[in-house]
Amino acid sequence: MRSIGAARLSLSTITSEALWEKTGRSSGSELFRLKDRKGSKLLLAPTHEEEITQLLVGYISHRYYPLRLYQIGRKYRDERRPRAGLLRGREFLMKDLYTFDTTEQAALDTYRDVQGAYKALFDELKLPYLVASADSGSMGGSLSHEYLYPSTVGEDTIVSCSDCGYTANLEAVVPKTEGHDPTFHPTRKEIAIHHSITRDRKTLINSFYLASASSSSQPINLSRLATLVPDLDPSTTDAVELFEKHYTPFDPAHSAKASKSHSPPKYSQIINVFDAGLPSIFSEPNFSNHMDVPAYPSFIADKTIPSTSISRDPHTDLPLRILRVNDGDPCPKCDSGKLTSTTAIELAHTFHLGTRYTEPLNAEVQLEDNRRVPLHQGCHGIGVSRMIAAIAEGWRDGKGLNWPRVVAPYDVMVVAREDMELDGRAVYDALVGEGGDPEGKSTLDVLFDDRTTKDLIWKMTDADALGFPVICVVGRGWKNKEVEVQCRRKGLKMNVPLAELKEKVEEVLTDL
Amino acid sequence: MRSIGAARLSLSTITSEALWEKTGRSSGSELFRLKDRKGSKLLLAPTHEEEITQLLVGYISHRYYPLRLYQIGRKYRDERRPRAGLLRGREFLMKDLYTFDTTEQAALDTYRDVQGAYKALFDELKLPYLVASADSGSMGGSLSHEYLYPSTVGEDTIVSCSDCGYTANLEAVVPKTEGHDPTFHPTRKEIAIHHSITRDRKTLINSFYLASASSSSQPINLSRLATLVPDLDPSTTDAVELFEKHYTPFDPAHSAKASKSHSPPKYSQIINVFDAGLPSIFSEPNFSNHMDVPAYPSFIADKTIPSTSISRDPHTDLPLRILRVNDGDPCPKCDSGKLTSTTAIELAHTFHLGTRYTEPLNAEVQLEDNRRVPLHQGCHGIGVSRMIAAIAEGWRDGKGLNWPRVVAPYDVMVVAREDMELDGRAVYDALVGEGGDPEGKSTLDVLFDDRTTKDLIWKMTDADALGFPVICVVGRGWKNKEVEVQCRRKGLKMNVPLAELKEKVEEVLTDL
Repeated sequence: MRSIGAARLSLSTITSEALWEKTGRSSGSELFRLKDRKGSKLLLAPTHEEEITQLLVGYISHRYYPLRLYQIGRKYRDERRPRAGLLRGREFLMKDLYTFDTTEQAALDTYRDVQGAYKALFDELKLPYLVASADSGSMGGSLSHEYLYPSTVGEDTIVSCSDCGYTANLEAVVPKTEGHDPTFHPTRKEIAIHHSITRDRKTLINSFYLASASSSSQPINLSRLATLVPDLDPSTTDAVELFEKHYTPFDPAHSAKASKSHSPPKYSQIINVFDAGLPSIFSEPNFSNHMDVPAYPSFIADKTIPSTSISRDPHTDLPLRILRVNDGDPCPKCDSGKLTSTTAIELAHTFHLGTRYTEPLNAEVQLEDNRRVPLHQGCHGIGVSRMIAAIAEGWRDGKGLNWPRVVAPYDVMVVAREDMELDGRAVYDALVGEGGDPEGKSTLDVLFDDRTTKDLIWKMTDADALGFPVICVVGRGWKNKEVEVQCRRKGLKMNVPLAELKEKVEEVLTDL
Repeated sequence: MRSIGAARLSLSTITSEALWEKTGRSSGSELFRLKDRKGSKLLLAPTHEEEITQLLVGYISHRYYPLRLYQIGRKYRDERRPRAGLLRGREFLMKDLYTFDTTEQAALDTYRDVQGAYKALFDELKLPYLVASADSGSMGGSLSHEYLYPSTVGEDTIVSCSDCGYTANLEAVVPKTEGHDPTFHPTRKEIAIHHSITRDRKTLINSFYLASASSSSQPINLSRLATLVPDLDPSTTDAVELFEKHYTPFDPAHSAKASKSHSPPKYSQIINVFDAGLPSIFSEPNFSNHMDVPAYPSFIADKTIPSTSISRDPHTDLPLRILRVNDGDPCPKCDSGKLTSTTAIELAHTFHLGTRYTEPLNAEVQLEDNRRVPLHQGCHGIGVSRMIAAIAEGWRDGKGLNWPRVVAPYDVMVVAREDMELDGRAVYDALVGEGGDPEGKSTLDVLFDDRTTKDLIWKMTDADALGFPVICVVGRGWKNKEVEVQCRRKGLKMNVPLAELKEKVEEVLTDL
């Protein structure tokens, strides 16, 4: 963060619902909510766009910008499925950077700077990682990348092209558009329908697509669908039964009241969503007349239920693509490649937010020509606690953890035979200098295992389990004043004379 | 913390109400409460005795102990009166150390070790401070000290003896007991009554004391009283009127129901509290017969209201002292001294807790003789964010802040005249070495003010306001290759040749 001129700060964890109402995010289902003794509605912040943008209101001179501010602190999410320890917790550690520029172009340059810093960081962690185009989701904004660690325990699916290097989160991939003959008119058997439902069970979503376009059992990009219907419940498989069970007929009087109070409709309704692969006739309002396609539930076809049709993306106004890509599908970015997918853990996410938050919160800048415009913002997070889990997972082997040097709590662990405690201390001194390293000026971070109740084998096993990059064993070789230097990652075990020890250990550590 | 062998950890901020119920602290009125999506009752931890003690359950071998664990993190309190920025916030930074020993004696030795470490820390901050015997209050335990910074903005009142050095929080001072003649029988005019009431307005507390024992307008130690009646409202002055207004007659049927549900009584009641300075007759149950003393409200005397009498301290079973001491009162610890009081800010608090938490939470240790006993615990906090406020307050002057070196973000600020930016950089290099100090190995932390839009006077004023211990000015003297070294704390301004600069600056910094 320092390499790109960012300054560190620390924002309050407790924030106010009123502030989040201004940006339309106060209804989030993963927010921890609380009230103070006066009844004020508070939130535990899962991220800080609102707080930090609010702070800049009034910092109007263009001389304050560019501004890059970051913090490392605890974040809170009332997760539906907390799992796997540090991988997805309800309380977690995050590094979040917020950038503010006076123009869109400057903000995009900043975005590139951040990408450079993130790549440098992940390179240093020596962890294989992917950078994927991502869906901005509920954060908003127009440009976004994820940094992911490929892992079978990951919850994200990443799609890569065999030829052009295109990499993206499955949710962000728009399938290749195959132009179709305007006179093409699928028979009703050629149309497939996928049903999903909202969490309140009052809205049934019928997704129509060309049956030949997907043979997958999960044809629909539910994440895309959720940008159209935010309350979508992605976990249900029996949407029609649930809709029927909770069916509430439309009542105009009730409806008018509900609409005034901004609460969700209390009656049942249908949203019909049309994939761009279908001919345009399917977006017409009289569509329901055609509803004798196979699998269309008679329960719905029989009734007059309020319904809406969506066939264009409301954000881009382009024809809507609601299908997921599958392994083997053609790459949407090149002419030759095929897509393959892999699961991965999201470690970091960069967003170019534009004026998504600065506009509603009125964070403006006065340009040199005196025009006042909203600031252009970016936000860039790294899941610190999650990264620790990913690194542990990525580098472990049958003997235990195996930290890359840059995150290892110590570079070297010194273990000595039970009767050689003093010799062990001499080896420690040879590595850091006599009397230890109280000022932290040594080039090596060394730990000496001084537990006198344990034998050498126990200590060696424990040092392996804890994952120190290098272990120095003071044992059999000591009669020749030699220390055994072990490095599991390099498959290395060698006896080194004490006089050469420090130099040799530094050499081994160089690329760890 | 390292100097006393404590290891750092980091506990979750979110904790559960169920855990706090086990130690009887879940009803605290300053707890921030929240629920997760499953309805589980959670708390934002204001302190971590429960969490950390819970972690040790099962670590039964005496070989694990002594154990000293600390963290530095955010704490939360739903304060009645948040005030003065960092001095009393609802979210604040705290260093909290928890110690565990196998015997009471070992725990007391640990307590002394911690006191030594705290004194070393406060000495290094170069802040005048007091160490005062304190009241353990709601934390429990039998031995407790506060570390305080005397300040007119402080909320604590500290009492010191003119002769013997005794220092204690006003709330912790037990007034000198003056033995009285067992035949002494005050007339009714010689008895004074102080009325207070609980927050729920259902319990009136009548505190009886010898009128001659205090002439103060605030005679009662309300903090002591609150240990007897935790719901006491210390802020009211019209207790009798409030009691009368909310008077609810006793209803045996209702009462039985309420008692079963563990909720507080819904009817009005009286607690009579007797200071030990009164003859013992006043602790007798038939006391209310005597209640024609002056100022006893006729409203109460007229009715049959359920009442309780307290004349001994329930924790120690000693006669109860409920009076506050006043300036000029005799010292309770020596024969000659008089007490004087001063206000102060509490910066740290040490508690010897004994088995207050380990017993209810079942945190046991198996001793060498195989007996299993509860661990002996201590907890020791430092208000980090509050300390920053106190240091700022303590060292500021008309020109701005003035940080002691040990907490200053930088030792030295270099400012240069507008046309001498390169010369300023040369001075910076002379102090830390060419190319800056990316590895943090320099003996000096130096900052260079590179703001090119500001003039020298502006930068000097700003450096003074920010409170750097030393400021190096590159200006008029530079034609002779001299730098002006300024130290406001020492009232020092001198021209130093560049070649001697580093040595001179280190000398000035030595005792800052």
